[in-house]
Formats: sequence, structure tokens, C-alpha cells
Amino acid sequence: MLNVDKQAFVSELISPNSSKIVLLVLDGIGDLPNDEGLTPLMKAHTPNMDRLAVISDLGQTIPVLPGITPGSGPGHLGLFGYDPIRYQIGRGILEALGEDIDVGELDVVARGNFATIDGEIIVDRRAGRPTTEESAKVVEILNANIKEIEDVKVTFYAGKEHRFVLKLTGEGLSDNIEDADPQKEGKPIKYTTALSSDAEKTARIVNKLLERIKEVLKDQPKMNFALVRGFSKYPKLPQFPEVYKLRAGAIAVYPMYRGLAKLVGMTVIPTGQTIEDEIETLKKEWNNYDFFFVHVKKTDSYGEDGKFDEKVNVIENVDRVIPEILSLNPDVLVITGDHSTPCAMKGHSFHPVPILFCAKHTRKGLSKAFNEFECARGSLGTIHSTDVMNLILAYAGRLEKFGA
Amino acid sequence: MLNVDKQAFVSELISPNSSKIVLLVLDGIGDLPNDEGLTPLMKAHTPNMDRLAVISDLGQTIPVLPGITPGSGPGHLGLFGYDPIRYQIGRGILEALGEDIDVGELDVVARGNFATIDGEIIVDRRAGRPTTEESAKVVEILNANIKEIEDVKVTFYAGKEHRFVLKLTGEGLSDNIEDADPQKEGKPIKYTTALSSDAEKTARIVNKLLERIKEVLKDQPKMNFALVRGFSKYPKLPQFPEVYKLRAGAIAVYPMYRGLAKLVGMTVIPTGQTIEDEIETLKKEWNNYDFFFVHVKKTDSYGEDGKFDEKVNVIENVDRVIPEILSLNPDVLVITGDHSTPCAMKGHSFHPVPILFCAKHTRKGLSKAFNEFECARGSLGTIHSTDVMNLILAYAGRLEKFGA
Repeated sequence: MLNVDKQAFVSELISPNSSKIVLLVLDGIGDLPNDEGLTPLMKAHTPNMDRLAVISDLGQTIPVLPGITPGSGPGHLGLFGYDPIRYQIGRGILEALGEDIDVGELDVVARGNFATIDGEIIVDRRAGRPTTEESAKVVEILNANIKEIEDVKVTFYAGKEHRFVLKLTGEGLSDNIEDADPQKEGKPIKYTTALSSDAEKTARIVNKLLERIKEVLKDQPKMNFALVRGFSKYPKLPQFPEVYKLRAGAIAVYPMYRGLAKLVGMTVIPTGQTIEDEIETLKKEWNNYDFFFVHVKKTDSYGEDGKFDEKVNVIENVDRVIPEILSLNPDVLVITGDHSTPCAMKGHSFHPVPILFCAKHTRKGLSKAFNEFECARGSLGTIHSTDVMNLILAYAGRLEKFGA
Repeated sequence: MLNVDKQAFVSELISPNSSKIVLLVLDGIGDLPNDEGLTPLMKAHTPNMDRLAVISDLGQTIPVLPGITPGSGPGHLGLFGYDPIRYQIGRGILEALGEDIDVGELDVVARGNFATIDGEIIVDRRAGRPTTEESAKVVEILNANIKEIEDVKVTFYAGKEHRFVLKLTGEGLSDNIEDADPQKEGKPIKYTTALSSDAEKTARIVNKLLERIKEVLKDQPKMNFALVRGFSKYPKLPQFPEVYKLRAGAIAVYPMYRGLAKLVGMTVIPTGQTIEDEIETLKKEWNNYDFFFVHVKKTDSYGEDGKFDEKVNVIENVDRVIPEILSLNPDVLVITGDHSTPCAMKGHSFHPVPILFCAKHTRKGLSKAFNEFECARGSLGTIHSTDVMNLILAYAGRLEKFGA
């Protein structure tokens, strides 16, 4: 196919109506069979999803390319219709989103690691893996001692364990600078370098900042230095509500997913900590949006931990709330994931992701259950995740015919 | 994927032989299950197609993108190997093709609607939906009174109901002008505007023409004005017989499909009004072509009308002529559609389209019947319609190996 901006192409065909759409993302839902030959989706008792499967179109998605394991950013951007290779979100931004940090137009953010140096040599890139509490204290010290470099405001935000987020705020900053991280232990401190002339100020500020950090932390036993990388400004993405002409609300417990939704212009709706809370929010806000992105995190978390039975439990929990979603009479209900997170791999993987479209006009009757095997043989075949939004709009009757 | 002209790539690999190919297109064949859980293809008694399915490779095609509903133009262009997003055929040309109107290099054609105006306001965009006969009389009046504007010849061709085709013939015409149609009732007459400087003459001619039409029709009770849109010149497409090195003949009852075949350079073979007539033509012309595009319209027509049983009947009719096609010993017989036209939707849809390739070297034995479900799980998987021609050539032994 020619190099077409698919999202722009689809946008031209949109004809809005009053339909309601729910995109339920079970993070990392795809998995591999265990010794019994069952994936968590197969093992779980899911009468509601299985009933849906019988009246739905099933398929499986490829998030980036076959064989490519996506992070959460590319995984979700694809589902939202954004080519994840074209729109790459910097690590600094993702880390900031994950910590619920506001990032504005004048900001550059980066991911930081506390590290241990001996003289000029990095001896431990993670400073002996401090606890989140220990590292938060050092972040406080930094904030108390370093408030600005030249005319640029500097803020540190505590993260998990050895991680923190650095935010620089000021005029004329750029994110086009090298990582200040030698990547390997035993190497000397690496200062950053501007990658374009308009980034020279930022590079200078960051290098001065590294000197200040070294000075302020010189008496810390382990966390006596910091590595910073993934410098990023807030990316400008086509805005989902405009592209798809949908009032879009995001219901997600974890900050990173709320942040990703915000990046594409969805309204982030406050909600509680559980799946049940999220469904309550969905019900309460039903009339205020056309499109709901509902995110369930724990399927991925237990996949990452290799906890098969716990992943099964989360799936069963989700299955129990399906009737409540259906009671709202959505015109389109999609259940899928942003990628696979097989328990046996304890991490994201490249395997295709099961997907189910429940709507009025489906080629129903082919499939008997919602799981990896049925989806691999579903009526929609194997599709790219960036086609999910086209299909959602089509099932919702929101796309005009292309050509006469 | 890189920006590859797939058609040009495939063309380079062609090595002609004496094989014979039949591409049998059942327009709008794909459908959705009815209350019994059966699509027309499942419901129909099709012993011949089912026997073929057992020895064929089955799959399903995506005509444009998942979720995109194609018109007849994009649907057929895809099957013929032309990227339907790259090659967009104007509405005026399609309308002209549908009415069997010759369009030459000096022509610009457009689709016209008779409309009712009150003063300068469009009060009915379809002039009370006149009959085809009523509107043909007004077309005669226009032709009698308006023969040219400046040096440009003007011709009106009657269409169905309120529709007609406008043809402008002259030097220096362009199709790069806006629609002269406000799209909504209650709005004033919309004159056209040139979209590039080389289109200014055409825009001026069209606006003068609109004034003339208003004057000539001022005493008509309802059809007292016209809206014109979809201005298009005859598009220059790579020519199918050259690209694929195939003597290609088209057998189609309806003008639009003959026109589409002609657009890509196939020879349009005269034929009768029925499927049986088309098969007689196929037999008679068997030695004169390598590739036959045989088009069956009624599967789509009955889908558009929501007439399930009638669609089933057409499929059974087609099934009855399959042995006659096979008696010609084609090397490759492909049965498919240009898109789906589900009876329940009474229109084209975005659902994948079943396809069957019967040839010598197939991975036969997987499928038991030719229908949407078997095709979704067929040996070829879900493919893009622009890959159908590659596969046809491959099954015909007409493609060399790529690379050593």
C-alpha cells in the first residue's frame, strides 16, 4: 500500500451519529498455553464473554509489526488509531504520565535513575536499588537545594525505587539532546550533547544540573548521583475527538494510561481503584460521551509477575461486570488488549492480541468463546491494531461509503 | 511497509504462458447470517461451488482497509490490482460509465440532480423525485436549448429519476473545481469555484451554464434548476493488459462494470442480459483472451433490496453454470465479490469478502464449502484485495521467482 495517512483518510469518511462505543482494554490480555494447554482466557470461567463471542466478530491484532513487542505507549496508540512507528512517545513523557505529572508547552521531562559513582565512574546504575521511600527522601533534598539553573526552573518528582522524573521549565528548551547515561557500569559520567543547534541551551543546562546534583548528593552513601535520559517535550498528536468526531472519555486507574488518553485528547474521567469502580464511572458518565476507553491494568501486572491463577481471577472479575456494561446498551463493545503479556515470559510479548467486536451487524456464529485460539480463527482474521478504530466506527455506522 | 508500487513490482515478475483465467465476480456476495445463522452462500444449495471449495484455496479479502465500505469503483479496482486509495475515480466518471456514455480526453463529466428552487433558495435537492421518464423530458429541453457555452460543447444525458449526466467538451478544461451543490436544502444556489488557476475557465463555463439552466427551466413546476457535482476527467490508469501481460476480456451486463473494465484497458465483450448469456459469451470468446472478468450483478442488487431468498436464488443460478465454466478447463478459476452487501444492511458493507482460488497447485482439503465462515478459516487467510491479481498470476504459473 502507498504511504497513506490512514487516520486522515478515515477521518474524511466520518459521519457522526448518536451511537455509543465502549473499548474495554484488558492490558496484556494475550497469553500462551500453560502445561494443561490452556491460556488464562481459556482457563477462566467467562460465561459472559463466551456468550458475547457467539454473537460477535472475533479476530486478532498485530500492535506494531509481527514479532515486535510493544511498550504500553505504542500498544495503546495503535488501538487509538495512531501509527505507533510514526508517533513515538519519549520515555520521559511516559514516565511523567505514569507519575501523573503535568507537562506543559515550556517543559522538557526526562526519566532519572539514582546511581552510585566513585569519583567520575558509575559503579551502580541503580544505586543499590533503594526503596521508593528512601529515594523519595533524596528527591526532597534535590528539590530543596536545586530550584533553577540559569533561567530554567528545575523540579524533581519521586518515582518507584531508584527512579524519578526530572522536569525543566523555561523558554527555548529542546528535547533534542543525548541521554546523560553511559548505559554501562564502570564507565565515566556521561554529559549530554545537543543534537541540533537549538538544543544547545538545554544541553548546557542539563550538564550544569548534573554538576549541581553531584555536589548536593556528594555525602549520600549510595544515591550520590543521577543518570537522566529520554528527554522529551509534550508531543503534538492529532486529537482523537477531532479526528474521529467522538466525545471520548477515558476511565483508567493507572496514571500512565490516563496520561496516554490525555495525550490524544480524550477527557480523563476520575474513577476509583477497582474494576467495579470503573464500571460505576462508566454508568454515571454514560450520557456525556460517545466513546469510552476503559482500561484494566491487572491482567498485565499478573502477566508480568508470571502469576497465571491471579491473571485468571482478574479475567473472571472482568467477566462478572460485562452484564453491567451490556445493560447500558452500547452500540459497539470491543474487548481486547494493547499487547500480550504471557505469564511464562513475565513480560510484554509480540504475540497477536485477541479482539472481539460486539455490534449489530456482525458475522456471528463462527466462534464459541473469547480466547486466543478462537480469535486466531475468527471472522475478522488477523488485522493491524491501527485498523481497530476504523472497524469500531464502521460497526457504529459512523463511516460513509468510500467512492461511488 | 515501504512505499512500494505493488502493481509495478508484480509486473516485473511476469512471465506469460498459455494459461486461461476466469475471475468470476458475484457483486456484493459477502453477507451476514440470518436468524437461522445462515448467510445466503450457506443457505443456497451450491453443490458445484462446494465441490470446488474442497479442491481450492479459500480466504477472505479486505477491499480497502478493515472497516471501510467500498463503492463499486474501489471494490473492482482493488480486485484488478489497483490500490483504490491511490486511484480514486470521480463520481462524474462513474455515473457516465453507468449510463454507457463515452468520455474522451477533452471531456469533463459531472453528476447532475434536478432540483427545485424558490428564488435563489434550493427547496428540494431532488425536485420531488421525478420519474425517469419525466426527468428525461427535461433533459431533452436542456439539450435543445443549451448547446454550448463559449467554445465548450454541452451535452446532457438522462439518468435514473432526478439524476442526469453533464458532459462538457472543449480545450483546456479541468476537473479541479468545487461541486456546484450546497448539499443542504434551504441554502442558496452554490456556484462553483476553481481549485487551481488552470481550472478557472471550467469554473466560469459551469457558472454561466447554471445561469442558462435556471433561465431555460424557469417555468418548470419542480425541475426548475440543477445541482452538479463530482466533476471528473477520464482518469489515466496503468493499463491492465500491459501491466499483467494478459489479453483481458470483460463480460458484464451492467454499464458501470463494463465501464470500469474499460477504464483499466480490458476489452469489453458484448453479451446478453442473463448469467447464461454471459457464460455463452465466455464459451464463444474462450480462445480470444487469457483472462476473463465475468461480472454477476444481481447478488448485489438483491442485497441492496434486502431480499435474502432472491440473493440465494442468484447464487444457485451461478452454481448451475459452474460446470460449464469448468468444461472450458480454465487453469485458474476465482470466485469472489468486490465487497459485501448484507441483506440485513440493505447496502454495501465493510465486512471481508469470501474468495476461492481453484487451480492445479492449491493446499486443498481444508475447506468443505464456499461461504463466509469457511473462507474466514481458509488456507489463504485474510488478504488485501489488491493481492488477488498476484495470486491469480501465481496460480496460473505466470510469475517468476523473486530474487535468486
